[in-house]
Amino acid sequence: MSTPTPLKIWHEIVANKEMSKLANIIHPDAVFRSPMVYKPYHGRGTMVFVLSQVIEIFENFTYHREMISEDERSAFLEFTANIGDKTLKGLDLITFDENGKITEFEVLIRPMSGLMALAEQMAVRMAEHMG
Amino acid sequence: MSTPTPLKIWHEIVANKEMSKLANIIHPDAVFRSPMVYKPYHGRGTMVFVLSQVIEIFENFTYHREMISEDERSAFLEFTANIGDKTLKGLDLITFDENGKITEFEVLIRPMSGLMALAEQMAVRMAEHMG
Repeated sequence: MSTPTPLKIWHEIVANKEMSKLANIIHPDAVFRSPMVYKPYHGRGTMVFVLSQVIEIFENFTYHREMISEDERSAFLEFTANIGDKTLKGLDLITFDENGKITEFEVLIRPMSGLMALAEQMAVRMAEHMG
Repeated sequence: MSTPTPLKIWHEIVANKEMSKLANIIHPDAVFRSPMVYKPYHGRGTMVFVLSQVIEIFENFTYHREMISEDERSAFLEFTANIGDKTLKGLDLITFDENGKITEFEVLIRPMSGLMALAEQMAVRMAEHMG
């Protein structure tokens, strides 16, 4: 049970906010499961866009406990962050394929106030992106 | 890395809905962190009440991936459930003390519609309990 290489790269990307490197570790058909909606988002481009926005929105983003499955195909990462005056706690559930590419990235957030603050900030950025 | 005994008992309790056994595996000063609110709930009695309600509210409750830390003090359990027509996904983050008692139980749920369905059902049951 060691840390998969793409997970190390993910941590470097987050630490340095180097989103340009993100596409390299994501499978073209990757699925993103949002904390807000049940319906998954498909494709690498969408995942890069969403994760890039979230990393910009979160303040004081910090990872805590990290669990990796024995086959190194699943990683559960606990984090905390702030959005304005809201404190939130979350989990990133990352699934890798046999080549170490991210095939699924799922995010859960608590409490409701933190989730709603993220939803609001994402909506602002979606409007800017579309407009 | 094996499954802590209290976690085995937890799984038996959930499978059989034997909530009377729940207090045995919870520390008197245990903390419950709700998916809805940031402020934690304190005490074994509160944790037993909340978990008992949630187990009744969830339909088709099923555990999936399970991650246990090498020191057996943290367990991350992935689950799915339904509430009426809402499908939800969640994580139980359970922390044990050196005697194997649960000291912290934290729940994260996605998506927002599933979290709100749970909040609504909990509010109904709180009103019945208080009334």
